[in-house]
Amino acid sequence: MNTKTNILIIGAGLCGSLLALRLAQRGYKITLVEKRPDLRTQHQDAGRSINLALSDRGLKGLRLAGVEEAALQLCIPMYGRMIHDMEGNTFLSKYSGRANEYINSISRPGLNMLLLDEAEKMPNVTIIFNKGCKSVDLENGSATFKDYPTNEEVTYTGDIILGTDGAGSSVRKAMFNHKKFLFSFSQEWLTHGYKEITIPPANDGGYRTEKGALHIWPRGEDMLIALPNLDGSFTVTLFLPYSNSEYCFDNLTTPEMVTEYFTKEYPDAVALMPNLVEEFFSNPTGPLGTIKCSPWNSYGKTLLLGDAAHAIVPFYGQGMNASFEDVVVFDEILDRFTSESTDWNTVFYEYEKARKKDTDAIADLAVDNFHEMKEHTASALFQKKRKLETAFEAEFPDKYYSKYSLVTFKEEITYAEALQQGRAQDKAILNLLDDGKLPEDMELSEKLKLVQQQTQAILHDDEVAGNL
Amino acid sequence: MNTKTNILIIGAGLCGSLLALRLAQRGYKITLVEKRPDLRTQHQDAGRSINLALSDRGLKGLRLAGVEEAALQLCIPMYGRMIHDMEGNTFLSKYSGRANEYINSISRPGLNMLLLDEAEKMPNVTIIFNKGCKSVDLENGSATFKDYPTNEEVTYTGDIILGTDGAGSSVRKAMFNHKKFLFSFSQEWLTHGYKEITIPPANDGGYRTEKGALHIWPRGEDMLIALPNLDGSFTVTLFLPYSNSEYCFDNLTTPEMVTEYFTKEYPDAVALMPNLVEEFFSNPTGPLGTIKCSPWNSYGKTLLLGDAAHAIVPFYGQGMNASFEDVVVFDEILDRFTSESTDWNTVFYEYEKARKKDTDAIADLAVDNFHEMKEHTASALFQKKRKLETAFEAEFPDKYYSKYSLVTFKEEITYAEALQQGRAQDKAILNLLDDGKLPEDMELSEKLKLVQQQTQAILHDDEVAGNL
Repeated sequence: MNTKTNILIIGAGLCGSLLALRLAQRGYKITLVEKRPDLRTQHQDAGRSINLALSDRGLKGLRLAGVEEAALQLCIPMYGRMIHDMEGNTFLSKYSGRANEYINSISRPGLNMLLLDEAEKMPNVTIIFNKGCKSVDLENGSATFKDYPTNEEVTYTGDIILGTDGAGSSVRKAMFNHKKFLFSFSQEWLTHGYKEITIPPANDGGYRTEKGALHIWPRGEDMLIALPNLDGSFTVTLFLPYSNSEYCFDNLTTPEMVTEYFTKEYPDAVALMPNLVEEFFSNPTGPLGTIKCSPWNSYGKTLLLGDAAHAIVPFYGQGMNASFEDVVVFDEILDRFTSESTDWNTVFYEYEKARKKDTDAIADLAVDNFHEMKEHTASALFQKKRKLETAFEAEFPDKYYSKYSLVTFKEEITYAEALQQGRAQDKAILNLLDDGKLPEDMELSEKLKLVQQQTQAILHDDEVAGNL
Repeated sequence: MNTKTNILIIGAGLCGSLLALRLAQRGYKITLVEKRPDLRTQHQDAGRSINLALSDRGLKGLRLAGVEEAALQLCIPMYGRMIHDMEGNTFLSKYSGRANEYINSISRPGLNMLLLDEAEKMPNVTIIFNKGCKSVDLENGSATFKDYPTNEEVTYTGDIILGTDGAGSSVRKAMFNHKKFLFSFSQEWLTHGYKEITIPPANDGGYRTEKGALHIWPRGEDMLIALPNLDGSFTVTLFLPYSNSEYCFDNLTTPEMVTEYFTKEYPDAVALMPNLVEEFFSNPTGPLGTIKCSPWNSYGKTLLLGDAAHAIVPFYGQGMNASFEDVVVFDEILDRFTSESTDWNTVFYEYEKARKKDTDAIADLAVDNFHEMKEHTASALFQKKRKLETAFEAEFPDKYYSKYSLVTFKEEITYAEALQQGRAQDKAILNLLDDGKLPEDMELSEKLKLVQQQTQAILHDDEVAGNL
């Protein structure tokens, strides 16, 4: 047990609270500081993303900390995408041809409360709320916080600091502004923003539409999605351009325009959202950004994890899952590189070396999917591809995994491997289809063989060319 | 003539001074403000990159402003890369198989002085030195400067502001910190830094090594290059990792280690650099970074151009050329979108739409080349490719352009087109060579046909897959 090492964790969201729990289980003495009030005693954050997709990589992290079963109690399985067309017709596109592969809708505050409860049960964890990080002394491993009720400042010191304070991370900003080492950093915003709207429960307390699916209303540039909540409601998210479009956030400025837009584009959804206009104007519009940076650590004292190190857009449903997988990878690195006289600089360096290429990959995959989801609605070729892949996965469940399945259900391979294999497969299928080399009357097994051969050829050619 | 529009240009380096000259020729009233002293009256910047590679895209910009001939007087043609191996053997690898394609070594301060002289001749140009930009009021189009001799602050207002204040741009920082719009931004640092050393003229005033070449001492991770100056000297640049290597900037801390390193790796160069050790310790070590951002304009009032908008690493010799090409593209946009009642928001938007993909492309190409220059020394396949391409260009000068030639000598195509075509060609040749499909006894014209077919197939496959 490492009872002598004090770890200061800044940010008690999903990543920080799971990390605190797991590191406490390893014996470290944990101080977990959060700027918000304790969400177990004070409701907050109306309008923020309140449910999330939990899948295999996230579950693996929860399992590591012994809280998978408890988390599953909060989950609603979603077996596929329920596509809603302009006429209100629906059809279900399953996530996988394999029966046991689905994703889960889970409440962000519900899961966060569970993790805080479990962390707090540990005798070596102290959780402090209402203290916002104002500055970090990177060279000495201390951070200064403002106490929100009193405005008093307090400084905490750790043997190491772990920054899990999310996409707007104060710890990362301290590194960016430090200027004594080269800090690579990028923030990339999409042209779209998002806004949340509620589908309340039916009058009998049940669900107003199919519970066991992630609903999607794809409309080219715009899109509505909905995930179920345990109380019978759904949280709907609108993705819409900020500007330069007939309907965009800059233009939807009156109740009439909002009603006109939704009635025209999403008539079946409008019927489910009685508070649409009110919520449209009272809920905030959020931006969609990707954040990457390097190095994640400074002076062997401070390390970024979760969204603080790699915030991604939500189009793969992997943000939380990636953060929980961070905890798994960090735990493995601790197994390999800690000792009586741990060199934290080495631990942090090895962690980034093991992890960075994968968080870069899921960031890029998520942006790809933003563009692909638009393509899907427009391109017959993409639809043919998806149909073929579903057939492959149903008929040959051990031999074929789509890019989506590789990312979502194959937690034994890395995001970077999923990206490389998945992109090559997509390219192979799209070109074979386009070249007429997968005719209707060809045996499915023959088609699979051809796709696999072509995928290998693409990977080989890329390797020879050094991925130019 | 647009004598009513006042344009404030911040930064009188190469891009800002050419832009001032060209916009003055178009009739605008120009105020050009520079933080440094007038380099025509005060020598400065020892250790900074003092010569640069000027090639076709840059010459096109100078031609537009009528100063190409004057600039060529300052140029030393470099016809190829002179490669120096570990034993001191040299061989010349020409830039192109076409006789008229070469690049030029030119003095940065010399060219800047020329451009300042020409701009100053215009009655509608005012140049102000020694005033550093401290803040920009983006919404109102004014900027506040500190006067360095007096420390007094002064505010200048323009109908529009053009920020050409380089990689560390204050104007760009104002946009980054503004927070009222979404500003995508990235700074990516290479693991290597650079340092400049001098090869002085020979005792008779001549050159100590071949004048008409860009000299390269490729050593895998490390590299030395040298460009000739008009006075008989060469400016040598060392590229070396900062850390994590036997020889790196972090380790080269004593005269003995510097001497040991250079003597071991670059014995023939050591003989030419009598002040090596002294200069190594007195000259600064510079970082190598890529900066991208978007939008380049804010409120239709302020626009970034040159390195302020897109700083790149030097491995394609295109930094200055890209900035001069910015002036050409901006001039074309002014032709198309200005009128009696110019909407600058539209001008700036159309400029970025036309230009951004190309500056992104040259940034990526320059980083590619950093890695490729290392590959070249290690990979027989890459060397075979280069040999074949040189043969293609010599034998079929109108039918084949290498990626380097497309970027450097084909200013009629964009950087983005050069990147796409060049990468596809490279991939085609490397794979055909690797697959043994270009045997020694095949006719060169047959080889070219095969390469062209394969290049087209690669471009087609990428297009079908949407460049996944």
